[in-house]
Amino acid sequence: MGQKTGNRVFRFEKDIRVAGRGNCVGKIENEGPLSGTFDHVIPDEYYGKQTFEQAETEFQKTALETAAGRAGLPVRELGLIAGGDLLNQCIASGYCVRNNGVPFWGLYGACSTMALSILTAAIAVETGMARHAAALTSSHFCSAERQYRTPLEYGGQRPPSAQRTVTAAACLILAKEGAVRVEQAMLGRVVDFNVTDVFHMGGAMAPAAADTLAAFFADTGTAPADFDLIITGDLGVYGSAILRDLMNQRGIVLGERYADCGVMIFDGARQDTHAGGSGCGCSGAVLTARVLPEMEKGTLRNVLFCATGALMSPTSVMQSQSIPAVAHLIHFTN
Amino acid sequence: MGQKTGNRVFRFEKDIRVAGRGNCVGKIENEGPLSGTFDHVIPDEYYGKQTFEQAETEFQKTALETAAGRAGLPVRELGLIAGGDLLNQCIASGYCVRNNGVPFWGLYGACSTMALSILTAAIAVETGMARHAAALTSSHFCSAERQYRTPLEYGGQRPPSAQRTVTAAACLILAKEGAVRVEQAMLGRVVDFNVTDVFHMGGAMAPAAADTLAAFFADTGTAPADFDLIITGDLGVYGSAILRDLMNQRGIVLGERYADCGVMIFDGARQDTHAGGSGCGCSGAVLTARVLPEMEKGTLRNVLFCATGALMSPTSVMQSQSIPAVAHLIHFTN
Repeated sequence: MGQKTGNRVFRFEKDIRVAGRGNCVGKIENEGPLSGTFDHVIPDEYYGKQTFEQAETEFQKTALETAAGRAGLPVRELGLIAGGDLLNQCIASGYCVRNNGVPFWGLYGACSTMALSILTAAIAVETGMARHAAALTSSHFCSAERQYRTPLEYGGQRPPSAQRTVTAAACLILAKEGAVRVEQAMLGRVVDFNVTDVFHMGGAMAPAAADTLAAFFADTGTAPADFDLIITGDLGVYGSAILRDLMNQRGIVLGERYADCGVMIFDGARQDTHAGGSGCGCSGAVLTARVLPEMEKGTLRNVLFCATGALMSPTSVMQSQSIPAVAHLIHFTN
Repeated sequence: MGQKTGNRVFRFEKDIRVAGRGNCVGKIENEGPLSGTFDHVIPDEYYGKQTFEQAETEFQKTALETAAGRAGLPVRELGLIAGGDLLNQCIASGYCVRNNGVPFWGLYGACSTMALSILTAAIAVETGMARHAAALTSSHFCSAERQYRTPLEYGGQRPPSAQRTVTAAACLILAKEGAVRVEQAMLGRVVDFNVTDVFHMGGAMAPAAADTLAAFFADTGTAPADFDLIITGDLGVYGSAILRDLMNQRGIVLGERYADCGVMIFDGARQDTHAGGSGCGCSGAVLTARVLPEMEKGTLRNVLFCATGALMSPTSVMQSQSIPAVAHLIHFTN
């Protein structure tokens, strides 16, 4: 059985590995710095369906089937699927798994869902609840815009601090075999620094990332220099700069090995994506298209993946509530 | 480490018990058959707050503090809180836990969340991730009505098959000590029998309950007669009758020991609550106010708690999608 190191970090005792990975992204996502690294690129934002929400479900199905295929088994033979998304009542996920015969562990972590679902799937493998467990999530620019902001047809303007929701789904299959190991995981705490600007999510989420990373370093007696890569998702240009400042205030210098999925997926100046990417699919796509392949090649060996999520809703924002955030962490090694 | 019995049922190896329980309900809930059994009754649906959503968060805080108090520790000393609710982006839960210093495992299971959060909290204790883990959920008639249906002021009519969302929050603290044991748990599969009537949730969820209960009996080699109580939440009057039929078709007679939380919490004829109660708080309130106390007294010793959830959203319904459902199961013993 795994052990809690220090206060909150959970070290898996079993050798839990990434047996399969898959992603499926939209057209603009494949026109950024990571162009050509994705498993599937779908130019049609409807993915042949009648609505953006149903399209998001199709993105998830494609990512799930791709990951299961790499793990060498059909989806129906998975022990369970742990997942969620940004849509009200997580319908992208609920409709993805309906009638596929696989037990479903529904999660809500907003943009932190990729890390939360990996933690959940890994715990399921650790306990023997499942031999193969899937971690699945997605986001879709069009379904998110009309739910969280304004209809696309409205053509609302966005400030430079705004981030663009990534159209992508990503999936990991965790099991006993694979090049990359899930060695440790840590659940985040919900922190709220009274940020109320919904066009500055990076600022709202940076304190949660700082809270989680600082606790991880303290509990494990490690420092940023001990890792090949420390990657957050998705703070964007401004949020990741704020995270560096917050860590500096704690005497922790993230340094050159720190990166953010929201910054990596888009070229803001060229793609007019403002402060970067966001959405559950952003960190999921960067993890499965860039980070895990490099770990499989051995060019990265020791990575901290810290996905961040903002837990407000349009209703809470209209009610003048500030934006709570959470950051969950996964420590990958190979 | 726990073992998977049969296909999907997980048997906890550690002696995981209910160290604390708490609930907080509204006025109408305390005027039904369970009147006088609740920990806290709040006549003001705003609970002193400005909005129904913020009130629901207060109901959660009261249930959480009551359960932690019974477990003999302050909330801040909990190892983690596993929870969710029905509101978009689960804001009742996110705002309940913000800045309380406790790691948060966000879940989405609609009305099945009480069982899903107990499963999650129990797994956390089983693995050693937490010594004390909370399972928390809530629902609020007023916040649910305006989100899922129509504003209260509209005074919309409801057919007899409609269920009333229960205003309640419930919490369990799982740890090593306590009279009631969490012995087994089982994640449900998402099933969709093409029900499209949002005023007949019981009909949409009954197939999920049948799928989970039939799998549990098959995997464990047990029958309904082996248990003191088999309780679903929340199928209501019509949904629970449909469940009996679906089980009969499988050659399984639920018999006299079967009950439904949605039927138990209201007196439909007297309270004009139609087919019964629903919402995450319904099964949570019945579990913590009625079932667990009877298990502590020893009048019930062997109980199957099968909470059901409908995974549609108003958006998916407007898009003519049918209603997927899930049912998660917890086996309590003492």
